[in-house]
Amino acid sequence: MQDAAHEPTLFPYAYPLLIKHLLHTPFVQAPDQEIVYRGQLRMTYTTLRERIARLANGLRMLGVTHGTTVAVMDWDSHRYLESYFAVPMMGAVLQTVNVRLSQAEIAYTINHAGAEVLFVHTDFLPVVEAIKDQLETVRTFVWIDEPDSDACAHAIPFTTDYEAMLAASATTYEFPDLDENTRATTFYTTGTTGLPKGVCFSHRQLVLHTITVMAALSSPVSGQRFHRGDVYMPLTPMFHVHAWGMPYIATVLGVKQVYPGRYAPDRLVQLVRDEGVTFSHCVSTILHMLLACDEAKHVDLGKWKIVVGGGALPRGLARAALDRGIDVFAGYGMSETCPVLSLAQLPHRTGPLDLDEEVRLRCRTGFPVPLVDLRIVDEAMRDVPHDDKAYGEIVVRTPWLTQGYLNDPDASGQLWTGGYLHTQDIANIDATGSVQITDRIKDVIKSGGEWISSLEIESLISLHPDVAEAAVIGIRDDKWGERPVALVVLNADAQITEDDVKAHVTGFTKNGRISKYAVPQIVKFIESLEKTSVGKTNKKWLREQFA
Amino acid sequence: MQDAAHEPTLFPYAYPLLIKHLLHTPFVQAPDQEIVYRGQLRMTYTTLRERIARLANGLRMLGVTHGTTVAVMDWDSHRYLESYFAVPMMGAVLQTVNVRLSQAEIAYTINHAGAEVLFVHTDFLPVVEAIKDQLETVRTFVWIDEPDSDACAHAIPFTTDYEAMLAASATTYEFPDLDENTRATTFYTTGTTGLPKGVCFSHRQLVLHTITVMAALSSPVSGQRFHRGDVYMPLTPMFHVHAWGMPYIATVLGVKQVYPGRYAPDRLVQLVRDEGVTFSHCVSTILHMLLACDEAKHVDLGKWKIVVGGGALPRGLARAALDRGIDVFAGYGMSETCPVLSLAQLPHRTGPLDLDEEVRLRCRTGFPVPLVDLRIVDEAMRDVPHDDKAYGEIVVRTPWLTQGYLNDPDASGQLWTGGYLHTQDIANIDATGSVQITDRIKDVIKSGGEWISSLEIESLISLHPDVAEAAVIGIRDDKWGERPVALVVLNADAQITEDDVKAHVTGFTKNGRISKYAVPQIVKFIESLEKTSVGKTNKKWLREQFA
Repeated sequence: MQDAAHEPTLFPYAYPLLIKHLLHTPFVQAPDQEIVYRGQLRMTYTTLRERIARLANGLRMLGVTHGTTVAVMDWDSHRYLESYFAVPMMGAVLQTVNVRLSQAEIAYTINHAGAEVLFVHTDFLPVVEAIKDQLETVRTFVWIDEPDSDACAHAIPFTTDYEAMLAASATTYEFPDLDENTRATTFYTTGTTGLPKGVCFSHRQLVLHTITVMAALSSPVSGQRFHRGDVYMPLTPMFHVHAWGMPYIATVLGVKQVYPGRYAPDRLVQLVRDEGVTFSHCVSTILHMLLACDEAKHVDLGKWKIVVGGGALPRGLARAALDRGIDVFAGYGMSETCPVLSLAQLPHRTGPLDLDEEVRLRCRTGFPVPLVDLRIVDEAMRDVPHDDKAYGEIVVRTPWLTQGYLNDPDASGQLWTGGYLHTQDIANIDATGSVQITDRIKDVIKSGGEWISSLEIESLISLHPDVAEAAVIGIRDDKWGERPVALVVLNADAQITEDDVKAHVTGFTKNGRISKYAVPQIVKFIESLEKTSVGKTNKKWLREQFA
Repeated sequence: MQDAAHEPTLFPYAYPLLIKHLLHTPFVQAPDQEIVYRGQLRMTYTTLRERIARLANGLRMLGVTHGTTVAVMDWDSHRYLESYFAVPMMGAVLQTVNVRLSQAEIAYTINHAGAEVLFVHTDFLPVVEAIKDQLETVRTFVWIDEPDSDACAHAIPFTTDYEAMLAASATTYEFPDLDENTRATTFYTTGTTGLPKGVCFSHRQLVLHTITVMAALSSPVSGQRFHRGDVYMPLTPMFHVHAWGMPYIATVLGVKQVYPGRYAPDRLVQLVRDEGVTFSHCVSTILHMLLACDEAKHVDLGKWKIVVGGGALPRGLARAALDRGIDVFAGYGMSETCPVLSLAQLPHRTGPLDLDEEVRLRCRTGFPVPLVDLRIVDEAMRDVPHDDKAYGEIVVRTPWLTQGYLNDPDASGQLWTGGYLHTQDIANIDATGSVQITDRIKDVIKSGGEWISSLEIESLISLHPDVAEAAVIGIRDDKWGERPVALVVLNADAQITEDDVKAHVTGFTKNGRISKYAVPQIVKFIESLEKTSVGKTNKKWLREQFA
């Protein structure tokens, strides 16, 4: 009998980790909770349940079956949310198309994923019309918008429109018990070099990411925690890493959800006010735009929690958000990691925290969420000391990492080495296990034998009241190897000089926070920072321009 | 390419759900957090990490290998916590022996599980000495206690003692990457009929239970939520369903943990005071004892959150706990379900709640936690209406249900029917998805064609200020089939009569909460209620006595 654990264990009542199982509790416990689209269209979770079934029935009529890829080109909408569930739950694969890519790239990703069905929002009719002859695998086009929307003239052979398809379909669907490793979603990373690379996630990975990140977001003592009383609105597009998986978490929590359509800062702030939004997530560029818009000057943002990811949260921006009462925190992850790996959080404490220290902690890369085996290692894969000083690359194992790029074994091989996914982010870690990224490997500035953290200098520059945004890049220098150059976007009526910025940064050398080598040799004021399709500063482009 | 999801997917970097992976974050993020034993011995998470490795090395020296069952007889201790991790992490099976069972039953469970190693605390030397000749599979006895404890005279051939074994062992161990379905733990259910039945859980099941219940316990708006700022102390014994899995959750959260040894009410209350305990869980009998003990009169319990499970939380007891400032809530589960299935919680609201209503909500069986597919069905497995009135049996599917009783196919077959585990609990469910158990199937009272909820009547009787505890059972009646009889334990100096109790219950018929058939025909005052080995009221025994 002592050999029982050796025997092949039988699991007659196994319960695979499937996306459909995320819906058991919210559909029973929040049947009347609201889902709002653009402040105009309102439906309940009960309607969501019915529309998910209708969508699956509609797709089945279109010939969608196990393994079919269904691609979506839409802004953030309740319809996108429905496709997050219905498409994978019926065994098909959801491709979330990055609508910010170039036409050629969009065509490439749809072909590469082999999408057979393409949902197209009115705003993307011109794009799809332009590329439709290049689409090799799409056989069915579905128009996805409000029924009364004005479609511009186009020559796309739509088979049906989304709302008519749903109206014609039954409100129940027997979603199958799939293998939990079935592919659920795919989308394309947007590196600054080469073609976009396809990333895939399975049902198991998305369920584990949802439950674990939910646990991590809920369990802080205070701060940005996401709970059943919140009202959720994404500000990371739903085409980008499933809006960081947050719509899945919001649905499990059964909270009110607000989908804003296309992002327009004034309109987003109005939605926060009118719908009582309390929890969002975005890249720093979006937060910057929101704080700068006219509407934000008149709206109370004091109940809003925002997780900022997809790049560092500069301290100046965090401070500006805190000044408006926003509970702002950094989060960290990447497309290949589903994405959440870590979240900043404030320590458990009884007394108040010094504001500078609080801002610093809110901007840190933060604490890995449960089940994440995150190490910071040197080139021989040895862990660096937890002294907040030693640098190394972040490597990770978690249950929700892409196993490789879609049909791209070469790139996949570089992603995984020594059993760990290599993030190419350079970081250090302190004695409390809090991680701080200092740079992407390719953005590191090496000056006089020292490594200078471009992210740290950008964050310090952002603390200057006249600075809107900053990027620090390295340029070749015969004597020092490289020297830091700061590219700075000033606020509208700012009057400062380059020397003022240098003096501001030099101020931080006095308490030893940075070395004097880190003070930018050149400060250049520019109109705006070039961004990638997902709103990150495009340092490769900047280096090329200012070399 | 559209067939990609059909192809067997390769997972070169799969990440199995193993108990060892629960430890990545706490060991890095809470290295100096305390674990306290009986208020005397204090160690850190770093020491826990080392002792887990030492224990695994020690067990390897004793010949423990993949599939070996290691049985533990101890009170709640840091050493028990170490075995929760080390034993399954090395691929062995942890048997948590119910030390409240009879000697014959203890011997039966150890033999039936095939345990080869037995850890014995000093207090159980007499028991083990008495049964040692009946133990068929145990080949190694290990004494588990403080090194300076006085062992009584005994004739047990100990191979070593726990602390000496750890002292002689290395502080690192390469825990293997097991199949996630490997059996991790086993223990025995304690029904009131027949032999104890063995229940097993795998690594995958325990990891999913830990993360999901953590998410559920963290995500309420307010109330009993378990978070990173808490101090944890179990009050459900560690031998019983892994103390409801809470030590695993507490460890992932990285909170201070307090292990009290043998439960003594005054001592437990002192630990709450001295160690600042803020989160516990127990059966109602234990909460009753704690509130009644002398020490509780002098200690501020206003920061203590307690989840009460393993049976109904009577409203009178909840009210008494609330009066002391304790944030008390009901939880629901069973040995076969790992155990947590649902948790009571208060609704999100802005204004205060009427006290009666608040007590009622805190005592409900509550809301199923995420991933739990909980249905209340009639005999044809049709869902009953969500109207808070219709009765049915609770049936469940979750990723953490025992797949059957150990080596007992007959009992296993009865547990699972129609793809669902049948709980034998009768309940109704309201429009918000909140579940309320009214009875075990075998305890239901049928009077004049109506079903009377014994748990509801007990809860109403418990609201009488002179009542300590109550049990309601059915006795045969020629006219009505059955009639309810209340067995009532009064507070020390209470002076009430049987008619006072009937009048108290009759008062609740006026607002229609219960029918007049539900007023007990007979009220009998007794000294105490017979309890099972895990502290539940033994209704079978009571029915036999009072038939």
